[in-house]
Amino acid sequence: MNAPWTSSVSRVDGDSVRIRGYDLEQLIGGASFTTSCFLLIRGRLPSPAEVRVLDAVLNAVLDYALLKPGTVAARYAVSGNPSMTAGLATAILSVGPYTLAPEDTARFVLDAHDRYVASGRPLEEAAAEIAEEACSRRLRIPGFGHPRFKQVDPRAQRLKEIAVEAGLWGDKARLYELIHRAFVDASGKPDIPINDVGMMAVVLLELGFSPDEMTGLAILSTFPGLIAHVSEELQSGQRIRVVPDDQVDYGDQEAVDLASGLQAVGWSSANEGEA
Amino acid sequence: MNAPWTSSVSRVDGDSVRIRGYDLEQLIGGASFTTSCFLLIRGRLPSPAEVRVLDAVLNAVLDYALLKPGTVAARYAVSGNPSMTAGLATAILSVGPYTLAPEDTARFVLDAHDRYVASGRPLEEAAAEIAEEACSRRLRIPGFGHPRFKQVDPRAQRLKEIAVEAGLWGDKARLYELIHRAFVDASGKPDIPINDVGMMAVVLLELGFSPDEMTGLAILSTFPGLIAHVSEELQSGQRIRVVPDDQVDYGDQEAVDLASGLQAVGWSSANEGEA
Amino acid sequence: MNAPWTSSVSRVDGDSVRIRGYDLEQLIGGASFTTSCFLLIRGRLPSPAEVRVLDAVLNAVLDYALLKPGTVAARYAVSGNPSMTAGLATAILSVGPYTLAPEDTARFVLDAHDRYVASGRPLEEAAAEIAEEACSRRLRIPGFGHPRFKQVDPRAQRLKEIAVEAGLWGDKARLYELIHRAFVDASGKPDIPINDVGMMAVVLLELGFSPDEMTGLAILSTFPGLIAHVSEELQSGQRIRVVPDDQVDYGDQEAVDLASGLQAVGWSSANEGEA
Amino acid sequence: MNAPWTSSVSRVDGDSVRIRGYDLEQLIGGASFTTSCFLLIRGRLPSPAEVRVLDAVLNAVLDYALLKPGTVAARYAVSGNPSMTAGLATAILSVGPYTLAPEDTARFVLDAHDRYVASGRPLEEAAAEIAEEACSRRLRIPGFGHPRFKQVDPRAQRLKEIAVEAGLWGDKARLYELIHRAFVDASGKPDIPINDVGMMAVVLLELGFSPDEMTGLAILSTFPGLIAHVSEELQSGQRIRVVPDDQVDYGDQEAVDLASGLQAVGWSSANEGEA
Repeated sequence: MNAPWTSSVSRVDGDSVRIRGYDLEQLIGGASFTTSCFLLIRGRLPSPAEVRVLDAVLNAVLDYALLKPGTVAARYAVSGNPSMTAGLATAILSVGPYTLAPEDTARFVLDAHDRYVASGRPLEEAAAEIAEEACSRRLRIPGFGHPRFKQVDPRAQRLKEIAVEAGLWGDKARLYELIHRAFVDASGKPDIPINDVGMMAVVLLELGFSPDEMTGLAILSTFPGLIAHVSEELQSGQRIRVVPDDQVDYGDQEAVDLASGLQAVGWSSANEGEA
Repeated sequence: MNAPWTSSVSRVDGDSVRIRGYDLEQLIGGASFTTSCFLLIRGRLPSPAEVRVLDAVLNAVLDYALLKPGTVAARYAVSGNPSMTAGLATAILSVGPYTLAPEDTARFVLDAHDRYVASGRPLEEAAAEIAEEACSRRLRIPGFGHPRFKQVDPRAQRLKEIAVEAGLWGDKARLYELIHRAFVDASGKPDIPINDVGMMAVVLLELGFSPDEMTGLAILSTFPGLIAHVSEELQSGQRIRVVPDDQVDYGDQEAVDLASGLQAVGWSSANEGEA
Repeated sequence: MNAPWTSSVSRVDGDSVRIRGYDLEQLIGGASFTTSCFLLIRGRLPSPAEVRVLDAVLNAVLDYALLKPGTVAARYAVSGNPSMTAGLATAILSVGPYTLAPEDTARFVLDAHDRYVASGRPLEEAAAEIAEEACSRRLRIPGFGHPRFKQVDPRAQRLKEIAVEAGLWGDKARLYELIHRAFVDASGKPDIPINDVGMMAVVLLELGFSPDEMTGLAILSTFPGLIAHVSEELQSGQRIRVVPDDQVDYGDQEAVDLASGLQAVGWSSANEGEA
Repeated sequence: MNAPWTSSVSRVDGDSVRIRGYDLEQLIGGASFTTSCFLLIRGRLPSPAEVRVLDAVLNAVLDYALLKPGTVAARYAVSGNPSMTAGLATAILSVGPYTLAPEDTARFVLDAHDRYVASGRPLEEAAAEIAEEACSRRLRIPGFGHPRFKQVDPRAQRLKEIAVEAGLWGDKARLYELIHRAFVDASGKPDIPINDVGMMAVVLLELGFSPDEMTGLAILSTFPGLIAHVSEELQSGQRIRVVPDDQVDYGDQEAVDLASGLQAVGWSSANEGEA
């Protein structure tokens, strides 16, 4: 069959819905949401250890008060358009290179791991070389550093502990940590820990997710919090949120007259006035 | 304090993030994602029975192949803009009155329940009156009927079973079911079951969620499937999906000349040509 | 032909693109953007008078500083995701019942006009009846009132003047204005002018646009301003905008211990800790 | 003043709205929408020549039937969520690297122009060097090539003609065209014309717009067509568009039993069944 679309996520067959082959009716009550999440994206059922780690990852970035652009944008949005759907879509659109994007770290680690494999050298040496190169070229390594946590990001450490306990701490995670240690040594900056999003990325790599899928999972982790914030805003009854004038520097926008302005750039007033 | 914003979802205090009072570090590895989801939205920890029911609800509408507008829209979107973020936001925007909106059912049931309480009459009588009224006025009751399932929607029944087992099947759910039975009798239409979204609504009402929050939870339930579809589309490498010409009736769009067309509606060709 | 899609907006035929029948090559340089806008949506070329009025409408709500939720939401969004596309989509999602929605006024006027026609009575009498009904039932009439303008909204008046001069001030517009006058008399509230969005709605009705299309045109009017704001934000280099803690009342979120909390609602700690 | 926000797009002062200093009331009826568009984004009034060219650019990509992903995505969206706002936001989200992004061409030309200026050599020589480099490294030059137009893209040529006539065809545009000619010679591929989006980019560079702003203007150009398509879809009454099963290759998704599946990956059925 040469159909324009190809999909193996689910199919509806007569009156049964099959999710990666499993009957939806059996999943309702037979699997946790985290298990179904793994099944849908990775295409196979997870082991208990994998569910434990994915559950930890999904708890890692639950909410961050009004200190996340998407949350604030969503609350502004529903103050004009009181719709849960519009609020949630708005919040997602704020996710990108500057926030909540484990995919950059994941791509960095995948590249580093390819170099390590190609080099045939021990993990430590490959890590040291990559870290030194980053230092000398003053490259930013994604997933390092946090505005509040200077030595250790406790959420990141907790994620690592759980992955280690579950036996899901592999070469990619180790390589990233070795690069981090070598980078701290080479740069003489002890206050740049691996942050939560960086750690999320390597843990999800070990679970077999692609970089794009990780961004999806990071958003999923924040989703219950977003529902809570949009609901809170809708219930507040606040309409038309604005930025008060005393928070804005509008500069000196001198009042100018349109007719003179148009003439000055070559219009005969009659012309544009009629256009 | 008379601040422009009020929020009790979470707060960041020094180096700890508190989610409804609970330390995020403890939640990582200490609670399932479903538990945290309940905590964030309802503001308190759920009991084991509540988690079991919410887990079932979150599994209820996981994915529906390419038979859901949002999934298809998202795949078109990323064929032009290969971004997980854009794909997920697109999918959400297709959710509304015609699909995935338990909020309409919830509002109907809340109104019906208010009438029942105000009437002081038994549940059965209140239900019968509401059903007869709907029949005689030919009103559509939200959550009834499904294109594929004629007697029973098995997913809906499974949800009910789990809620009953968990002891979370209360008056609102009972009232809705009684209205359904009375409606089937009064209308003489036996082939209109309570569908999955309708059942989801009453179960979530019993868990204490608001109508808006339910739409958020319905979207959350589909989120892992959306990640899977967007990932599948991104990996397919498909660029610029279109609708093939043989699928479209473009009618007879007769070719017309602009200059004559403009003159016919009163333009001197010189005028608009210059504008 | 019984195709799943039907469209008469444009078609691509060999190497020519036809917009409602007109060759795109001729439109480039042969028509103003406002003319093409009318052509695409209404399906025919506009007269000079129609272009003059549509141009005025498209200028009516160009920008409103940081006093519009969508503009602010968009700037938050691009502080996390520096993308023009994401910023513009975000801004649009804030448009709804509380802001920039001429469609509500348009639907009100269409209903009123149907009643007037059905009644067979003079415009004044129909208007008076509708206004009195709204007063006695305390209904809000869409498009009346403005937070800053108390007697007259000068932008609305300017729109009306241009429509009158162009000979495009018809019965629907007159009816709405008569309802407004009767409402002011009946309610004894002289300080409720027809606002800009209300006037935009009746003027667009006279040009033949549907209520949904008007919301699209209102958004189009704000689009150049949105591009300017997103560009300004991107050039500012601002990353991760947040709401400062002193602007938020986070209430008393007492710190609570997860293990005790779970036990209190019926969990054996071992259970959820492992889930 | 050290305010958190800075903006010079517009300000609301008492009861007047000033757009880049000009009174909004004067702009209504005093300027075409294209003039206001230039004013808002570039911050100053345009000359008649600049308006003529910007008008041509805004007509350049008006609509492309159902052969553009965003249009199709928007129609799917409103078949589930019948909202103009949601439809328009959806359409925008499909714009990105693979479609409608003049910003990539603009960044390429700005880099090339910087190299030309730094080199101190004639335009032709700089162009030849850049083209040869692209050929030898097999780099794709953005804005070259079109699936339908092999020798010349007539829309692109029309845009150029208008810019030349208006005296707004400068060094950046000339450089891009010289690179194109040298590339065709060096690569021996005569069938790769400058396409409409590429030409739009250089023309907008000559008008002083930034790459991000161009993506905004490309979207603006398609906006009336999007309104028309969403309106057409809403009026069609089509609900819940899907992809018919005969258009999809769902592969062999073998039916599997959940309980056995869970056991196979290490779950005791009791465990996950209860989770």
